[in-house]
Amino acid sequence: MGFKFDISARDGRARTGVIATPRGEIRTPAFMPVGTAATVKAMMPESVRETGADILLGNTYHLMLRPTAERIANLGGLHKFMNWDRPILTDSGGFQVMSLASLRNMTEEGVRFASHIDGARHMLTPERSMEIQRLLGSDIVMSFDECTPWPADEKTARASMELSMRWARRSRDAFGDIPGHALFGIQQGSVYPDQRAESAEKLRAIGFDGYAIGGLAVGEGQELMFQVLDYAPDQLPEDKPRYLMGVGKPDDIVGAVQRGVDMFDCVLPSRSGRTGQGWTARGPVNLRNARHRDDPRPLEAGCTCPACRNYSRAYLHHVIKSDEIIGSMLLTWHNLTYYQRLMQGLRDAISLGKLDQFVARFHADRAQGDIDPL
Amino acid sequence: MGFKFDISARDGRARTGVIATPRGEIRTPAFMPVGTAATVKAMMPESVRETGADILLGNTYHLMLRPTAERIANLGGLHKFMNWDRPILTDSGGFQVMSLASLRNMTEEGVRFASHIDGARHMLTPERSMEIQRLLGSDIVMSFDECTPWPADEKTARASMELSMRWARRSRDAFGDIPGHALFGIQQGSVYPDQRAESAEKLRAIGFDGYAIGGLAVGEGQELMFQVLDYAPDQLPEDKPRYLMGVGKPDDIVGAVQRGVDMFDCVLPSRSGRTGQGWTARGPVNLRNARHRDDPRPLEAGCTCPACRNYSRAYLHHVIKSDEIIGSMLLTWHNLTYYQRLMQGLRDAISLGKLDQFVARFHADRAQGDIDPL
Repeated sequence: MGFKFDISARDGRARTGVIATPRGEIRTPAFMPVGTAATVKAMMPESVRETGADILLGNTYHLMLRPTAERIANLGGLHKFMNWDRPILTDSGGFQVMSLASLRNMTEEGVRFASHIDGARHMLTPERSMEIQRLLGSDIVMSFDECTPWPADEKTARASMELSMRWARRSRDAFGDIPGHALFGIQQGSVYPDQRAESAEKLRAIGFDGYAIGGLAVGEGQELMFQVLDYAPDQLPEDKPRYLMGVGKPDDIVGAVQRGVDMFDCVLPSRSGRTGQGWTARGPVNLRNARHRDDPRPLEAGCTCPACRNYSRAYLHHVIKSDEIIGSMLLTWHNLTYYQRLMQGLRDAISLGKLDQFVARFHADRAQGDIDPL
Repeated sequence: MGFKFDISARDGRARTGVIATPRGEIRTPAFMPVGTAATVKAMMPESVRETGADILLGNTYHLMLRPTAERIANLGGLHKFMNWDRPILTDSGGFQVMSLASLRNMTEEGVRFASHIDGARHMLTPERSMEIQRLLGSDIVMSFDECTPWPADEKTARASMELSMRWARRSRDAFGDIPGHALFGIQQGSVYPDQRAESAEKLRAIGFDGYAIGGLAVGEGQELMFQVLDYAPDQLPEDKPRYLMGVGKPDDIVGAVQRGVDMFDCVLPSRSGRTGQGWTARGPVNLRNARHRDDPRPLEAGCTCPACRNYSRAYLHHVIKSDEIIGSMLLTWHNLTYYQRLMQGLRDAISLGKLDQFVARFHADRAQGDIDPL
């Protein structure tokens, strides 16, 4: 049960270290690319690994509907199915049920809903979520919770948090203890410090292998999110990984790492890659813009990804405008490479005790904006 | 001017050899994957090379409209633009103008048309086609012709063939003589042996570095196509490459190689890959079919492509049904690998003087049909 988490260095509230799992090490702070339906869209898994990713995220909601958890289990588990032998974290399915499914009915027991694919009726409960994640063979299983909607008044936030804590207990009981697999609890409490503290206390009492900070990145904005992160991570156990779910943009990640967060996931680098947005040290670049159409320069000088090594901005512009699949392939590859380079930079800076300088440089580079047009 | 074409072995009317170009050797019989808009759809060019492709085809019509030949020339040519440093053959644009553009008006001078992308008016003539292909940096340039529509009565076919021969002359004159680049003529004449002979004679008189057999694979069916191939290749110079444009299915290629054809191109393996069809020695397999959804076996046992090495039919079925980009990537990769394996098999068989046995085995394997369901 659980994994060894070695924190090798601290700088302010930030930490860097390694989570050791039977399927390989996860260097923290870690960014997890999202492989929703058993694929990181437009990427071969070996390419995802080449970008530096130690762990992927899979979505329970999508996989339970198609191809189903039982089918994946019969085929040898999610790792074998999607040809990724390193760690996989799966979410609980709760968040996506609330954002994608229809005819939802939430009760104490769980959530009934209709599939967005074929309308079939399903039910997710803490017990069913644990069963599905176990069938998938997930290395890091997330407890089933309600992601408290934003905005929520104190009373609504409390009711939601308390329900999630009861579901956390049921998740823990249903998960039991699986050697080599970890269960993470999820803190709720919206933007209310006392509720966050109470949620953290309840999770500690149950006991998890890691702790997520839930209910953020749901529309509250970076300023409010950072206000919560000014205290929420420190409410969680110091010796366990802290995971900020669904975050985020590069500057969100940098600010959260400064505040003591160890793990992140977000669809942003892959999704925006498919729409022609490239992320660089100097900020986002819209390759659809006509200013790139004659530009022989790479998207980001010095980047080691194939998009930057082998192609011009003019080519990227052309294939994106032409809706060619290679446009999605190349920009996703670049964006995931950029994100992993950012994480490596953060880890190195923390190790050297130079996080402040790194962050100052990060913001200075972005302030420059993209390279000048030709 | 032109390339050295060494025929190393013959078996019946079939030949195997090597076309030596400054950008690398082309082993014949050769299959050229189609990279319409400066990309073989859903493939990285290094992966296309891994399948065994020695040469790609690019489409003049698409590239002249977007990003334009002038832009590609300014960026250093098509090879650099699309990161493919081996030979590229470009078509003349004529065929696609007739199948894709609107408001077409064909005269002795050439074809006026409106772009299918933005409606802009353009004109393609033999001279403009040569200029565009030269700007692209094409290694093998095709002369500008009219692909005689099917069916065509003798009179219509003759008028079309004679126009194409006048355009062949103008293409030759406009192309001139570019060291390290070759110009191919295109035989027309529909299904009329005397017209095919006359067309071949006119092309020989002009003198080309290679000869294509045009006006086939346009709806006439395999039986009629093979009837033409029973005599047409032998009307062309023995010591130059013979290229059957737009062909085809594996059994089309096998039959054409038996009849003396050296080069092929077709969108089939890439296009059908994107719709879930896998080509194997035992025939085409529709991966969308539900019979694959629990099948842990590879698409084709023994195949060296990533789709077969690392994934089950169940996974391929899942990602295709889910419209995931990796489905297009994996099936295109497999199909191009299968096509190149077929070409290698044909080359080896001709070298060994065992083409008949190879073809018998080819048909026997296909007659078996796909592997039994689980």
